[in-house]
Amino acid sequence: MLSKSEIKDIRALSQKKFREERRLFVVEGDKLVAEALASDFEVVRVLRQEEIGQEAMARISMLSTPSPSLALVRMPGPEAVEVDTSGLTIALDSLRDPGNVGTIIRLADWFGIRNVIASNDTVDIYNPKVVQATMGAIFRVKFSYCDLPSVLSGLSCPVYGTYLEGDNIYDSELSRSGVIIMGSESNGISGRVGKCVTRKITIPPFSSGRTVCESLNVAAAAAVICSEFRRR
Amino acid sequence: MLSKSEIKDIRALSQKKFREERRLFVVEGDKLVAEALASDFEVVRVLRQEEIGQEAMARISMLSTPSPSLALVRMPGPEAVEVDTSGLTIALDSLRDPGNVGTIIRLADWFGIRNVIASNDTVDIYNPKVVQATMGAIFRVKFSYCDLPSVLSGLSCPVYGTYLEGDNIYDSELSRSGVIIMGSESNGISGRVGKCVTRKITIPPFSSGRTVCESLNVAAAAAVICSEFRRR
Repeated sequence: MLSKSEIKDIRALSQKKFREERRLFVVEGDKLVAEALASDFEVVRVLRQEEIGQEAMARISMLSTPSPSLALVRMPGPEAVEVDTSGLTIALDSLRDPGNVGTIIRLADWFGIRNVIASNDTVDIYNPKVVQATMGAIFRVKFSYCDLPSVLSGLSCPVYGTYLEGDNIYDSELSRSGVIIMGSESNGISGRVGKCVTRKITIPPFSSGRTVCESLNVAAAAAVICSEFRRR
Repeated sequence: MLSKSEIKDIRALSQKKFREERRLFVVEGDKLVAEALASDFEVVRVLRQEEIGQEAMARISMLSTPSPSLALVRMPGPEAVEVDTSGLTIALDSLRDPGNVGTIIRLADWFGIRNVIASNDTVDIYNPKVVQATMGAIFRVKFSYCDLPSVLSGLSCPVYGTYLEGDNIYDSELSRSGVIIMGSESNGISGRVGKCVTRKITIPPFSSGRTVCESLNVAAAAAVICSEFRRR
């Protein structure tokens, strides 16, 4: 049985303020809970519907259809950000959509990109929508927030950014190490971060002269870029 | 000024039932409204905040931050589904997430894939979340619902489907025409639709033996696949 105050405490974790205060976040679903348990993350509590009842689960769940299990997981402490210049890193510049950020972390995991860094104003990755969208990748990819320009300036590896006038990615030489910056949904790469870009690239539209969308969704663009870096 | 009943009628268009009944859907934002006006779609009414006032706009808007303009657009009538076997077509098999479907329509537009078809149980593309996620591509890509197995069986072009045991897409020969099936978020390609697949493909993970996610998000997978078909 869960007490009223326990239910209230768990529900509060949908808000960043309480997550930060208690250093906990919520993971839902048998698969994600199993991944949390198998990971290096500390699982503080596992709640199963068969034990707490359907009604209590519906109250603590942040999903429209509550799943059979939910876990409270300890947020890792902030680490000093170091870019591994011998491999690939994705940098998120002011991304606001939880689904996009979760999808990009899942992509990073799939394509063996171990490190993702993000500007401090990027959506909180412990937001339940981000956590669910990562499908467990949140437990495998190393993630940190930072002041991007400070971290990116003066790196010894290439820093890639997507711009309309960039080089066609399909014909470009892409290195095995470097940072790939993904710009925000509405404004692309910001001015300060753009100054750190050393290689401008673009995904050309296949338009044959027709009018097409001005851009791809940022997670779709990240998918194409990761695929291009990795297929070679 | 908008009357109470006008506001009620517009708000009702967030529901599929009323959209179907009135054959209208909602488009929001200056850019999308301009794209609707420039398209072949019939724009029934344009509402601007400067004319109707901020309060009325907030009441009719389906966005968390209402934009300065909103248009009511006529849904095109259902057309008989014909697959153009001389080009590429994307087929959506039971996709449920509005963001994924909108992103895939935007991808199709970007990569010059003019036709998208979907199983009847795929989310309604006139759902406001789908419409907004297409970023205007909804006015350019031809879209229809159908019984997928009936349409796909006996086509003279290849029918591609993504399966774990499929051929590595990076090493596969990909044709300039054919149908690319994207399976549902939770179950992949369904049994009946799978029987129509003539070419199984896969996007290999870059895992070096590590455990990775079981799959990519369906819109991210579509991005990689479209990119592979078009870069060659």
